[in-house]
Amino acid sequence: MPRLPRVAELTANSVGWGFFLCSRKEMRTGRSGSYLALLLQDASGEVRAKVFQDVDATSLEFDAGEFVKAQGKGNSFNQQLELIVDKIRRVMPERDAIDGFREEDCVRCSPRPIDEMWQELQGHIAAIGDPNIRALLGRLVAAHGDRLRIWPAARQVHHAYRGGLLEHVLKLVEIGSLLAERYQARRDLVVAGAILHDIGKLQELSYEMSTDYTVEGNLVGHIALGFALVRDAIREVPDFPPALAAEIEHLVLSHHGLRELGSPVEPMTIEAFILATVDDLDAKIQQIRQHIADDGSDGPFTSYHRRLERAFYKG
Amino acid sequence: MPRLPRVAELTANSVGWGFFLCSRKEMRTGRSGSYLALLLQDASGEVRAKVFQDVDATSLEFDAGEFVKAQGKGNSFNQQLELIVDKIRRVMPERDAIDGFREEDCVRCSPRPIDEMWQELQGHIAAIGDPNIRALLGRLVAAHGDRLRIWPAARQVHHAYRGGLLEHVLKLVEIGSLLAERYQARRDLVVAGAILHDIGKLQELSYEMSTDYTVEGNLVGHIALGFALVRDAIREVPDFPPALAAEIEHLVLSHHGLRELGSPVEPMTIEAFILATVDDLDAKIQQIRQHIADDGSDGPFTSYHRRLERAFYKG
Amino acid sequence: MPRLPRVAELTANSVGWGFFLCSRKEMRTGRSGSYLALLLQDASGEVRAKVFQDVDATSLEFDAGEFVKAQGKGNSFNQQLELIVDKIRRVMPERDAIDGFREEDCVRCSPRPIDEMWQELQGHIAAIGDPNIRALLGRLVAAHGDRLRIWPAARQVHHAYRGGLLEHVLKLVEIGSLLAERYQARRDLVVAGAILHDIGKLQELSYEMSTDYTVEGNLVGHIALGFALVRDAIREVPDFPPALAAEIEHLVLSHHGLRELGSPVEPMTIEAFILATVDDLDAKIQQIRQHIADDGSDGPFTSYHRRLERAFYKG
Amino acid sequence: MPRLPRVAELTANSVGWGFFLCSRKEMRTGRSGSYLALLLQDASGEVRAKVFQDVDATSLEFDAGEFVKAQGKGNSFNQQLELIVDKIRRVMPERDAIDGFREEDCVRCSPRPIDEMWQELQGHIAAIGDPNIRALLGRLVAAHGDRLRIWPAARQVHHAYRGGLLEHVLKLVEIGSLLAERYQARRDLVVAGAILHDIGKLQELSYEMSTDYTVEGNLVGHIALGFALVRDAIREVPDFPPALAAEIEHLVLSHHGLRELGSPVEPMTIEAFILATVDDLDAKIQQIRQHIADDGSDGPFTSYHRRLERAFYKG
Amino acid sequence: MPRLPRVAELTANSVGWGFFLCSRKEMRTGRSGSYLALLLQDASGEVRAKVFQDVDATSLEFDAGEFVKAQGKGNSFNQQLELIVDKIRRVMPERDAIDGFREEDCVRCSPRPIDEMWQELQGHIAAIGDPNIRALLGRLVAAHGDRLRIWPAARQVHHAYRGGLLEHVLKLVEIGSLLAERYQARRDLVVAGAILHDIGKLQELSYEMSTDYTVEGNLVGHIALGFALVRDAIREVPDFPPALAAEIEHLVLSHHGLRELGSPVEPMTIEAFILATVDDLDAKIQQIRQHIADDGSDGPFTSYHRRLERAFYKG
Amino acid sequence: MPRLPRVAELTANSVGWGFFLCSRKEMRTGRSGSYLALLLQDASGEVRAKVFQDVDATSLEFDAGEFVKAQGKGNSFNQQLELIVDKIRRVMPERDAIDGFREEDCVRCSPRPIDEMWQELQGHIAAIGDPNIRALLGRLVAAHGDRLRIWPAARQVHHAYRGGLLEHVLKLVEIGSLLAERYQARRDLVVAGAILHDIGKLQELSYEMSTDYTVEGNLVGHIALGFALVRDAIREVPDFPPALAAEIEHLVLSHHGLRELGSPVEPMTIEAFILATVDDLDAKIQQIRQHIADDGSDGPFTSYHRRLERAFYKG
Repeated sequence: MPRLPRVAELTANSVGWGFFLCSRKEMRTGRSGSYLALLLQDASGEVRAKVFQDVDATSLEFDAGEFVKAQGKGNSFNQQLELIVDKIRRVMPERDAIDGFREEDCVRCSPRPIDEMWQELQGHIAAIGDPNIRALLGRLVAAHGDRLRIWPAARQVHHAYRGGLLEHVLKLVEIGSLLAERYQARRDLVVAGAILHDIGKLQELSYEMSTDYTVEGNLVGHIALGFALVRDAIREVPDFPPALAAEIEHLVLSHHGLRELGSPVEPMTIEAFILATVDDLDAKIQQIRQHIADDGSDGPFTSYHRRLERAFYKG
Repeated sequence: MPRLPRVAELTANSVGWGFFLCSRKEMRTGRSGSYLALLLQDASGEVRAKVFQDVDATSLEFDAGEFVKAQGKGNSFNQQLELIVDKIRRVMPERDAIDGFREEDCVRCSPRPIDEMWQELQGHIAAIGDPNIRALLGRLVAAHGDRLRIWPAARQVHHAYRGGLLEHVLKLVEIGSLLAERYQARRDLVVAGAILHDIGKLQELSYEMSTDYTVEGNLVGHIALGFALVRDAIREVPDFPPALAAEIEHLVLSHHGLRELGSPVEPMTIEAFILATVDDLDAKIQQIRQHIADDGSDGPFTSYHRRLERAFYKG
Repeated sequence: MPRLPRVAELTANSVGWGFFLCSRKEMRTGRSGSYLALLLQDASGEVRAKVFQDVDATSLEFDAGEFVKAQGKGNSFNQQLELIVDKIRRVMPERDAIDGFREEDCVRCSPRPIDEMWQELQGHIAAIGDPNIRALLGRLVAAHGDRLRIWPAARQVHHAYRGGLLEHVLKLVEIGSLLAERYQARRDLVVAGAILHDIGKLQELSYEMSTDYTVEGNLVGHIALGFALVRDAIREVPDFPPALAAEIEHLVLSHHGLRELGSPVEPMTIEAFILATVDDLDAKIQQIRQHIADDGSDGPFTSYHRRLERAFYKG
Repeated sequence: MPRLPRVAELTANSVGWGFFLCSRKEMRTGRSGSYLALLLQDASGEVRAKVFQDVDATSLEFDAGEFVKAQGKGNSFNQQLELIVDKIRRVMPERDAIDGFREEDCVRCSPRPIDEMWQELQGHIAAIGDPNIRALLGRLVAAHGDRLRIWPAARQVHHAYRGGLLEHVLKLVEIGSLLAERYQARRDLVVAGAILHDIGKLQELSYEMSTDYTVEGNLVGHIALGFALVRDAIREVPDFPPALAAEIEHLVLSHHGLRELGSPVEPMTIEAFILATVDDLDAKIQQIRQHIADDGSDGPFTSYHRRLERAFYKG
Repeated sequence: MPRLPRVAELTANSVGWGFFLCSRKEMRTGRSGSYLALLLQDASGEVRAKVFQDVDATSLEFDAGEFVKAQGKGNSFNQQLELIVDKIRRVMPERDAIDGFREEDCVRCSPRPIDEMWQELQGHIAAIGDPNIRALLGRLVAAHGDRLRIWPAARQVHHAYRGGLLEHVLKLVEIGSLLAERYQARRDLVVAGAILHDIGKLQELSYEMSTDYTVEGNLVGHIALGFALVRDAIREVPDFPPALAAEIEHLVLSHHGLRELGSPVEPMTIEAFILATVDDLDAKIQQIRQHIADDGSDGPFTSYHRRLERAFYKG
Repeated sequence: MPRLPRVAELTANSVGWGFFLCSRKEMRTGRSGSYLALLLQDASGEVRAKVFQDVDATSLEFDAGEFVKAQGKGNSFNQQLELIVDKIRRVMPERDAIDGFREEDCVRCSPRPIDEMWQELQGHIAAIGDPNIRALLGRLVAAHGDRLRIWPAARQVHHAYRGGLLEHVLKLVEIGSLLAERYQARRDLVVAGAILHDIGKLQELSYEMSTDYTVEGNLVGHIALGFALVRDAIREVPDFPPALAAEIEHLVLSHHGLRELGSPVEPMTIEAFILATVDDLDAKIQQIRQHIADDGSDGPFTSYHRRLERAFYKG
């Protein structure tokens, strides 16, 4: 039996076995009896899967949140690819390591290596000119490094995978710096905003293999959570100038650009305008690229994108 | 020379002198030369005023932010009442006290006595059943008592006078409690939300005779400021339950009801729905009553209210 | 064979028989042949049901709109509970009465007893101080008592069951009175508005076991229908003051609060503001409570509520 | 002293005397003392006017709502034409008749003669095929003939002059009939809708020389008032078919086309769509023509029209 | 074996064979194996169809875009009619002609004969008074005659069939002329706008049996494409007056009436207002009539229309 | 008599003479007689001015659209700076050249020298890799060079001065290129879009000293005009690939980003998203900087900006 290709390369003709993270497992009842509906992922993406055989016995072999070894074949259902699973069990770490099982291969992941991104972030902070801002960033990044290294940027919309938040942050630092220079805006402020704007997501989302909203994430939201983290950290930097503090908090609070998008205040400085523009652009480009990559339709245009309310030209 | 009536009772026929707080003073140039444009207030309201005589000399006699003694007569200009001032100078406290000058008579003020309101607030807090909530409220109210006693609720829209915030808060406690009981909602949460929802206004607005936005007030806003105050205070109550903390912060953050009105999260609990409803209703009723009181138009309907986009029936 | 629990307590493990009202019955064709798709209800709620066996013969045994005796078992399909029916026939009143069949147990119903609510309504009317308003309410309630006692408040959204309209009206009287007192508004007007605001629903909806829109209900709508009923009744009260008439009609017409929600005029009096606020709050709280009760999802938040566009916190 | 041209032809160079209706008269105080601010009209339009001389004495010579004889000259103030009045007194009917005073020349008026319009309306009603609709229209038009002949269609927006409502109604009958024929819609229904759609304006507006909203007009509005008038009249036509009644009431209620424009129900029949379209088109064309006629700006485009949010091409 | 009725008259009880155009053919995988999902049409409408037997062999017998002979029976699936096909093959023109096959019977088509419509269009152009406009229309219609005769007006929304664009254009000429006359607008301009407004659809849509968007259609859109066609043609009419050119281009660009509906400029002339109104009304009436015709629901109201957001009264 | 400072540095205390372009001149009538209301500009900005003395005679000395020599003093009126002019006459070129008169000093102008900007533009075009795009840009820029060098980008909103369009275009090329590189988008397309997006403004606006809308500018608009210019030029480049043509036209048509902002199609490619984002950001930053520069208010925040609906933080 051959090995299945990575999820991103699965087709209706794929047959074989592979290692995955099972992020969802539900018993459902169809017309011809019960079956298991699963969601499997590896570093390259995720795919729905179904088990129709020996459902009750098979169900005991693994749980949602576990790594699994699964054997099956691709299928096209309602124009979406799925995996019909014949056998599945939880991974036995030692034994399966022989066949090449590695945890990191089974979790959706940023295309950029985490360590490389982390070093880049440290470099950006070291390059900040303003000592107060540099101290603030250093303190916050150190305090939340464990999460910041690996957190996803969202549950679904964009950069929704391991390291996605850091990847998104670094892109914003890169683009934001350029715009700040070209428009003679205060570069340090834009970089600070880029690094801090989504820091509340470390508390808004839980991320343990799979991503979900925390209670606080729903009731308070990442904008207010991030603001509180930043405000607390500012207090710990001795003699942080109050006006600078207000501007940095403003960057975090206004980064969605509009009140109807969840920012309680709207950008009132050039730097806040730049940050909100760059954040929006980066998220949109990632969504469009993802949609084009996922698109299975014929012809030069993708299918309709619900959130962005249009089709895209694939060229 | 007779004494002028209170601002609320001034007419185009009023002639005499009175004590006021001068909250604005600007030199302007009209067709026939310079004049001083003033805003004067007493406990009952505020009125525009103009000085046309001896402008340069008179201007040296007082400044914006000072209490003044002014003599003049009412006038109707563009259908608005104004005061044409003949003489004006800053108050000389000892001397003018003989004529009845008292600071508190010259500042716009809640119709309810401050001490009475303060005691009522203390009573509400003492009546809270949940010890964590009671401790939180006690701590916050004690820490900010100086401001909370006298703060206005807004610069212009509603309850925009000394003690206005406290008056508004107490009304929300009263109405919110009733609704909580009638809908079997958690009364303690609604009361906490009512007391805390606008606490960020203590930092959003500066209030020293006249009211204005602080830098932080504009850049951060009272919703985020209030949330931060509450979050800090919660940390100081030992063993405050995290889920309760999230719910109370949610009450503060969601109290405008809709994202487009500045709440970064929208009500997700019955208690948050009740609070947002009561806050909106109380502010609207105060605005309508104020508009009817200020209205000088003939007939059974008021003039058009810009913010509420309609006229009201005076009956 | 055991008796099935009430609809509200059905689970995927329930097995047995019960009495229901069948409010919908359709023949459908699936991949493996025809089946009957039903909607069954009792006092506690409603549930979808399917008949797969002996479809043609079984279909002759009952019709939509009839009370039925059904035997079957619970099932979970697409995460929704349904009943797989093995046997079903129309109720035989005498015979089934022995097994405990009672019509009123098979129709969705307000949790409050109708007679108790009716007496409460009479008490509220008797307590009205203004003789004109009291006469008007007495006349309208007497004329439409048969319907007003049992009518639902809606087909689906909220209070959509026998007696639901009366239950909703009484809650509005209760809450509206309190707010009127606390805000020194005219209590009699608010009570009149609460009792009359939805009276057009008696003509908008047909209700004979199940609820639907009438032709007039769709083309004219309950707001205009209610206004016409009130206007006609006012004409029959001798010497009813015209300004009072206009205010009461205004309460009915403006009770949705905004033109885009179907009110041709928006509230122009304090009383109309209170009524629209209370109506909205009561409908929202009922919907949230219903949604939380119906919610089958895991975790501290409900599934997404389409109409209210958010999830709710279950605590 | 020459006679002034008609209001529509006044310029900054006009000098002389004329007869007008004075529809507004207010005492105002400017920098150089009191003056009278007037609004004068004749059949062709209206113009602001000011009296600066002998203000107190002159003010006794006439009142708002009276016909006046005025002498003065044109002036351009803030780019708007006004009349600087030197002498003004109330009309002395007999004496001034000699100089050509006629009441009808001094009131803004439809360009079409009232009697001609009235006969045309009677012809349209007589041509209705459906006896029930014909009876209904005959009854309503007879009952309200006095007002329907002379009423304006609005206070300001369009057809805001004597006979304007009738002129607007006849245009809608004309255009609506054509569209009904071309689209095989039921012509009688469209004609009925055209005649009845604004009948509530007879109660919404008061019109005695000048136009204003009644209490009922504000609190109930012409859509509900018109619906009630029609519903009452339908009841008096024996055996009026209920479904036809609902459709006619629907025409009146839905004629603004959208809920946010004040229709509590939106068009659900072809005829209601046609009526709403024609009503909107006729009102818009009248506003555009009026704006072009009033426009004093240079160049091929008019000034900006606030309500329609654009400039128009004058060609 | 009998012949199937026309698509518009198919029911769940229909059995037999017929000729169709197959406009879509997809292989899908269900629970019990693969099947072919088809879309079949004739002059009267279109219907979904499925092939479950001998799928692989059958699939070789025809392709999407070909005329087919199919045999099967009606079925009702999820409340929509479909055809379960037993046999299907591509048409053999000579042989099938004997059984009455004609291409034109198998393509959805305007109810009006194309030649009759074409002559009517020529008559309208000949009747234009302005020689420049007449020359422009003559040139454009001659250059694009092949497409203009047969093009659909849309892929789905309204007049979505052979000759639909011409049918829509002629209705707009008819109604637009009448309104122009009755409102003393420039008839020639309105007629030109009616003929030209959608001419960009000849490039926006591809139409070869079935309709789709072209690359240019998506990226540029019919409004800009039509404007470019008109602008090019104007250049070829010697001495075309520039102001007239701008007005005609304005008609094409503004015909959707509002920017949010895709018009980069909004109507600034009476003629452009009339055109946009008539285009909207004609499209809406066609949609409503189609929806009523397609509606299979019981009772006096149709099912809900998603695009128009309401149900319609069937009378 | 000293020379006045440049307009940008005028204060209420300035006294002296200077050279200006008079872009508006109107006779107005105030309470104390007629006066001339002027708009004067030099390279640094524009200022309102008034002539009160010898109005009739002075008015003969110059016209709107002429260069003038004026003497007067600054004044603050309604918190806006104006110039009270004592003497004014049209420039006598030879004679005034002696005193330093130069046309280019009297017209509002980009801060960057035109020749430098022009060379930069040529460099950008030469650097384009795709020969078709390079040919297209070369052709268009050559054909419209005269206007493109000096045109303003708008009448009022942003870059509303000589050379403003070119300055705006170059900024978009700069920023757009960077973003294209960083996001691996097609740089040539983004540069082409940046250079061409506003080319329709060469026809939308007239610019002869002062700026105004042309007839075509209003009726057709710069988006459609630019699209037509580009489409015509594409036709003249032999063998221009059709798909590339559609993409470039899409860039021009979609550059406002949203239909409600006047783009008939919305961005469907990454490059179009980048262009619309950069155009919006550049215009906003220019407006904010202009508003801060113009702002005369005290305190750390500017006055309210109507178009952007907020105040800005001046820091």
